[in-house]
Amino acid sequence: MTPAQKRALVTGGTGFIGAATLSRLIERGYEVHLLGRKATWDGAGLPWAKSPRFHQIDLLQQDCRDLLAAIRPTHLLHLAWYAEHGAFWWALENLDWVAASLRLVRAFAASGGTRAVFAGTCAEYDWSADTLDEATTPLRPATLYGASKLALFQLLQAARDQLGVSTAWGRIFFPYGPRDQAGKLLSAVIDGVRAGKAVACSDGRQVRSFIYVEDVARAFVALLDSDVSGAVNIATDEISSVRDMVSLAARLSGDESLVQFGARPMQKGEPPLLRAAARRLFEEVGFRPQFNLADGIAETVRLRAAKAN
Amino acid sequence: MTPAQKRALVTGGTGFIGAATLSRLIERGYEVHLLGRKATWDGAGLPWAKSPRFHQIDLLQQDCRDLLAAIRPTHLLHLAWYAEHGAFWWALENLDWVAASLRLVRAFAASGGTRAVFAGTCAEYDWSADTLDEATTPLRPATLYGASKLALFQLLQAARDQLGVSTAWGRIFFPYGPRDQAGKLLSAVIDGVRAGKAVACSDGRQVRSFIYVEDVARAFVALLDSDVSGAVNIATDEISSVRDMVSLAARLSGDESLVQFGARPMQKGEPPLLRAAARRLFEEVGFRPQFNLADGIAETVRLRAAKAN
Repeated sequence: MTPAQKRALVTGGTGFIGAATLSRLIERGYEVHLLGRKATWDGAGLPWAKSPRFHQIDLLQQDCRDLLAAIRPTHLLHLAWYAEHGAFWWALENLDWVAASLRLVRAFAASGGTRAVFAGTCAEYDWSADTLDEATTPLRPATLYGASKLALFQLLQAARDQLGVSTAWGRIFFPYGPRDQAGKLLSAVIDGVRAGKAVACSDGRQVRSFIYVEDVARAFVALLDSDVSGAVNIATDEISSVRDMVSLAARLSGDESLVQFGARPMQKGEPPLLRAAARRLFEEVGFRPQFNLADGIAETVRLRAAKAN
Repeated sequence: MTPAQKRALVTGGTGFIGAATLSRLIERGYEVHLLGRKATWDGAGLPWAKSPRFHQIDLLQQDCRDLLAAIRPTHLLHLAWYAEHGAFWWALENLDWVAASLRLVRAFAASGGTRAVFAGTCAEYDWSADTLDEATTPLRPATLYGASKLALFQLLQAARDQLGVSTAWGRIFFPYGPRDQAGKLLSAVIDGVRAGKAVACSDGRQVRSFIYVEDVARAFVALLDSDVSGAVNIATDEISSVRDMVSLAARLSGDESLVQFGARPMQKGEPPLLRAAARRLFEEVGFRPQFNLADGIAETVRLRAAKAN
């Protein structure tokens, strides 16, 4: 008996996390289709014969039903969202993405899809808790971004039986990696130190569950390939202070002393500790990270330097 | 100083509740615009000179931005939703209406609108509570309809400052009236008794906050014309058992003895008591109902008979 072809449709597949999912999906035997707004796609260096098929569409503006009926994906990995650094927390585009995501999942179900995984966020949780657990931590987002992701999650949960699609929702914790947007903390530190400039940081005492972007991608692909349903934290069980992470990145970039901790105020609403419960991802999905923080930071510094040179 | 023209855009304006809002809006000095799917509109018997302007659009299928930019409404009363009797509780069209409503409010804000009121539902509340209060009762919908309305409410709340629109959310309790869909309980009782047929009912012991459709419409218009924000129950402070309401309707229709209480099982998940806290609507919005239950039932029977003859 030949297993039926699994056909994955990926949105946001050219983005920070999405780009890292493509080769994993191919490895797992998926025929991969990408949706994207740009007119062309560079193929992301993947071998031509197995290269994902790229379909140009603007999900915020265009009706996707005909396209999905033509592709007939069995699996959907919906990572696309408004992600402009800094602005995304309160942008009204969050509402547009809720609407577009609902239209997408309706079209996916109508075209015969059976399994869908969506990108959620740890910002759906009440951040007054220290450990953020899928089963027990209250959901109380403090931002429009968190509220929008949560609303979509709750709608998918409520519509589960009617949609006839098995769904899971990956709540991403604090991802980092070499393709991170330049304005973000780690990129700023690496680029600054490499340029011999002082880098102003907060005191960096806040502790977070960080996860390397390749592990985020692997976790999403494992989740898509499982039948686990509902919310699953996308995180490892390793925590670190921002200070330790930044110090390591600066040291590996050439000069730890260029980082000025305490030179900037802590951002408003930054709790001292946000730790993910990673039990569901580890035990139910069977995921194991390939990068601990030291390795992930080393890889980030190495790849960012390679790109800059 | 001449007050600026208030221009109200009403969706669902040809429906059960929406149709009753039109003359109230005109009375309050609004220039009224209706959106509707049908090609034409009968004018609802309103005087031609003040008749609302009708614009044909299918909000589920069409982009409404150009139309709203042309109308430039100052006020939005969004009542349209999927309302097929029986089916609406679990229909996937609920998701489509969340998406369409988000697009609508974005277009309304972009076209310069300042005040918007939306139709919510008492089914957003946890029905294990007896008295459903905006400030204290947990929100825990048991249906896709309730979850969809709640998700939209929470998104509007989270986006309030960014939208720059003053918003309120009217949670409708148990409305009744002569234009009620024929399959609904009260219509079935009146039509059945008038035809001399026995009508099978549940035991009818459940107690509800009922409200006459004209009062629902008046409450929404009063809310639109106020600056009260957030959720407001659309209900009176009068409660009644289904049995008492049905008995009165049957008596006024000719023969109370044709109603067979207990001949049908109670619908699943029907709590014995659902009473609205009506304090916000009465005290903050300043609404007073014009119909008590006896008057509302009498009017319903009278108008339904007039229509049938």
